[in-house]
Amino acid sequence: MNFRIDGLQYANWGEKIFREMRAGGMDAVHVTIAYHENFRETVANIEAWNLLFEKHSNLIIHGKTAADVDLAKQTNRTTIFFGFQNPSPIEDDIGLVEIVHTLGARFMQLTYNNQSLLATGCYEAEDAGITRMGREVIREMNRVGLVVDMSHSAERSTLEAAEISERPIVVTHANPYSWHPALRNKSDAVLRALAESGGMLGFSMYPHHLAGSTDCSLESFCEMIARTADLMGVDHIGLGSDLCQDQPDSVVEWMRVGRWTKQIDYGEGSASAPGFPDMPEWFGGNADFPNIEAGLRQIGFDETDVNKVMGNNWYRFFEENFKPSK
Amino acid sequence: MNFRIDGLQYANWGEKIFREMRAGGMDAVHVTIAYHENFRETVANIEAWNLLFEKHSNLIIHGKTAADVDLAKQTNRTTIFFGFQNPSPIEDDIGLVEIVHTLGARFMQLTYNNQSLLATGCYEAEDAGITRMGREVIREMNRVGLVVDMSHSAERSTLEAAEISERPIVVTHANPYSWHPALRNKSDAVLRALAESGGMLGFSMYPHHLAGSTDCSLESFCEMIARTADLMGVDHIGLGSDLCQDQPDSVVEWMRVGRWTKQIDYGEGSASAPGFPDMPEWFGGNADFPNIEAGLRQIGFDETDVNKVMGNNWYRFFEENFKPSK
Repeated sequence: MNFRIDGLQYANWGEKIFREMRAGGMDAVHVTIAYHENFRETVANIEAWNLLFEKHSNLIIHGKTAADVDLAKQTNRTTIFFGFQNPSPIEDDIGLVEIVHTLGARFMQLTYNNQSLLATGCYEAEDAGITRMGREVIREMNRVGLVVDMSHSAERSTLEAAEISERPIVVTHANPYSWHPALRNKSDAVLRALAESGGMLGFSMYPHHLAGSTDCSLESFCEMIARTADLMGVDHIGLGSDLCQDQPDSVVEWMRVGRWTKQIDYGEGSASAPGFPDMPEWFGGNADFPNIEAGLRQIGFDETDVNKVMGNNWYRFFEENFKPSK
Repeated sequence: MNFRIDGLQYANWGEKIFREMRAGGMDAVHVTIAYHENFRETVANIEAWNLLFEKHSNLIIHGKTAADVDLAKQTNRTTIFFGFQNPSPIEDDIGLVEIVHTLGARFMQLTYNNQSLLATGCYEAEDAGITRMGREVIREMNRVGLVVDMSHSAERSTLEAAEISERPIVVTHANPYSWHPALRNKSDAVLRALAESGGMLGFSMYPHHLAGSTDCSLESFCEMIARTADLMGVDHIGLGSDLCQDQPDSVVEWMRVGRWTKQIDYGEGSASAPGFPDMPEWFGGNADFPNIEAGLRQIGFDETDVNKVMGNNWYRFFEENFKPSK
């Protein structure tokens, strides 16, 4: 059985997009449900998702384990897995790690762009590595089956997380720095550390992470995937589109600014281009995943490896990493 | 297979009591985890329980379904099911009903002693019945599999809850008013409504609910059970000890006063006897459940009915009522 899985999205969820997920053949999507929300606000976001699961039970199901992806596939639905792009939902309380896992969280970034209580974000000038609480939280995440995601973290913190964590760590959405030197893209050292941990890189289609931005060609994107397969091994890569489909620009402002500053922080954008960038023509939304699959075939991936990248690797990762450690 | 189950306790949890539960042969206990706590405070209480589950995994397991009771029995442990004696954990937010069920709550009282957002408590002068939000919350509790418990509710509210609820409702801990006319004990009309709903009454060993209080004899208690079996049917009764083992008197003050008054409210106690009353000599704690079993045999219950009252009825109730409706 082959699976189509996206390692990260933050779309304007609703029936339109769920139908596009079906059109794109998506068996599972990891969705962000918190950027800067505290615990209670995150619970409110889960409540909103519960209403979506109830209302659109013909299109989506809430994923807890890989077995839910099998069920979704058999019933023509898409599995939704929750994740956080910041540890703000656990506040300063390690007991909340198990609580959020029970509520369905399966990925948590140790940082967004800034310093957190756990680690350093990729936009800070100094990276002091994993904090005292960070070490404790990584151990607890390992215990309950909440995956450490270092997508927005700084280099040293990421390498230390890979070393401290006794289970694989991931970067759900980024690309190699060697292909496009963005602050959010990852060094070869980080990519090797992910693979050595048994973890995954999800390739991002967010224009700021693409060589040539919106004008990046599908061929260039797929060639980058091929080179990363050479570096990391073809079993440790998948997709992590970072798709923010149908979101208004107010959303990217919340993502970047939260409540940590009274100024505007443009993040990967700029004063002249503060909003979401235009997507590349070959990937506008959930219905376009087949374009990526065709692109991978086109540059010479064989059928097995195409399927690994399109979802089978993520499926295997979910099987091994969403349950409590023994 | 026969089960020994207690329908309500609020003890000073820890290794000592968990070992007594094993000594008493308890396969499952419904424990109160909130009296007046709001959502975040209730989560903190669950976090404290999670530490107990981790630390004492040889003695207790966290129960979600009846199958966990089977597992506990096979492995010589006691299953702990969570419940609330007040709807304060869901605040004014119906979405929290599913959230608390996901976190393990299986019983929720619509009121403690006072008026709540949902219904009227047994100490209020006027009982206006189930509120607008109450009707909605009962429907949602039915949907997710959170049992409506009317132990501390007033008469009209209780009868209306039985009518509105599409799944059985319970009184986890009280006795018949006809045996001992305490405000917390239940009229024959309420007892019949419980049975007609397919629900349960759990007999309380809390002295304020016993004829003769601390001096109540085991024989009188067991005769009361026999008469209630005649009224409700022997399939609708079980135990609900209301045991507050090893708790300091500060705990009964929190139970009664919470944050709703600046005065002392003595509840079922009085100014001259403000603390926990002494337990009857035949039931001092978790190790004494075999005394009840012997008492039931003594007054003539046959083996099948002894086992129904001691736990098999609760087990069947758990099987049918802890999962989402279809």
